[in-house]
Amino acid sequence: MSRWEPDAVGRLTKAAITLFDEQGYEATTVAEIAGAAGLTKRTFFRHFADKREVLFNGSHELEECWIGGIAAVGSDVGPMTAVSAGLDEVAKLFVDRHRFARMRARIVAAHSDLRERELIKLQTLADAIKAALIDRGLPVNSAILASHAGVTVFHVAFAHWVEQDDPAAFRRLMQESLQELRSVTAT
Amino acid sequence: MSRWEPDAVGRLTKAAITLFDEQGYEATTVAEIAGAAGLTKRTFFRHFADKREVLFNGSHELEECWIGGIAAVGSDVGPMTAVSAGLDEVAKLFVDRHRFARMRARIVAAHSDLRERELIKLQTLADAIKAALIDRGLPVNSAILASHAGVTVFHVAFAHWVEQDDPAAFRRLMQESLQELRSVTAT
Repeated sequence: MSRWEPDAVGRLTKAAITLFDEQGYEATTVAEIAGAAGLTKRTFFRHFADKREVLFNGSHELEECWIGGIAAVGSDVGPMTAVSAGLDEVAKLFVDRHRFARMRARIVAAHSDLRERELIKLQTLADAIKAALIDRGLPVNSAILASHAGVTVFHVAFAHWVEQDDPAAFRRLMQESLQELRSVTAT
Repeated sequence: MSRWEPDAVGRLTKAAITLFDEQGYEATTVAEIAGAAGLTKRTFFRHFADKREVLFNGSHELEECWIGGIAAVGSDVGPMTAVSAGLDEVAKLFVDRHRFARMRARIVAAHSDLRERELIKLQTLADAIKAALIDRGLPVNSAILASHAGVTVFHVAFAHWVEQDDPAAFRRLMQESLQELRSVTAT
C-alpha cells in the first residue's frame, strides 16, 4: 500500500457508514472500517480520533459554509435574512450528502451518546453563528436569539430532508421551517 | 442522628453550592457536603446519584412548573402565548432561587462537562414542552419550533437574571427576550 491514499477521508467515511448501517455502530471496529476502505488502521487514526468522529467530521465544513453565507451578504441585511443566506449555502453543500445524511441520522438517533454529541455540535454551531452576527454589529442578545432560531430551523428542516426522497429539497424545507417559526412566534 | 432528616435535600443543596463556590467544584467531596449539612453520606446518596446531580436536581421541578403553566391556559390561546404563560410560572418559582441560581450558573459555566449536562437538560425540557404543545393540538413542526424558541428565550433571560441584582426581574427579562426574538425573526 502506498503512503499516499487519495481521498482517504472519503473512503473511510463511506466504509464506516456502510458498516454501521449493515452490522450496527457498536459492532463495527476501526480495523473493519479501514479494511473495507482498503486502508490501514494507522491511516484511519491519522484522520479520525475514533469511529465516532467519522459521524461528526462534517460539522466543521457545515459551520464554515454557513458562516461564509452570512459573511457574503451586505451589512444592511437583517439578521435572519443573513442567517437564511447561510442556510442557502448549506443546502447547496448538502445536495450530494443526502444518502450519507439519511444513514447517519438513523445511527445518531439510535444512540444516546451520539445524540448528546450532536447537541454539543449544534451548540458549537450556534456559537459560531452568534459570533458572525456580532461581527455584523448585532447586539449580543439578538445574536444569541437569531443564531438559536437558525439552528432550530436547520434542525427541523434536516429531520424532514432525510425522511423524504429529494436531495434538492433542503432549501425549500428550510424556508418553510423559517416561515413556520415566524408564524409561531408572531402569535 | 435520627433517620428522619427534615429537608435533607434543601440542606444538602445549600451545603453543596456553598462548598462548590468557596473551594471549587472538583475539590469538594460528597463526605464534605454531607458533613456541612449535618447529615451522613448515606443520606446524601438516598437523594442524589453524585455531587453533579445536586446542580441538576431542580430541572424536573422547572419542567413541571412550565408544563403546568401551559396546561392552565385555554386551548384558544396561541402556542407562544401558552409557552409564555408557562414562563410566567417559572419566573414565580425562581424568585426565591436567585442567589442559588447565580452561584450555580458560575459553577456550570466553568466546567465543560457541566455545560454539556446543561445542554442535555435543556433538550429534555424542550422535548417536554413540545409534547405539551402537541397535546394542545399544535402540529409537530410548529411544536418543535415553539418549544425551542421558548427554551432559547428562557436561556437568554436566565443569563441576564443571574447577572443583575433584582430576584423579581425574571418575568420582565423573559418578556423582553421574547419580544426580541419576535423582532429578530420578523426581519
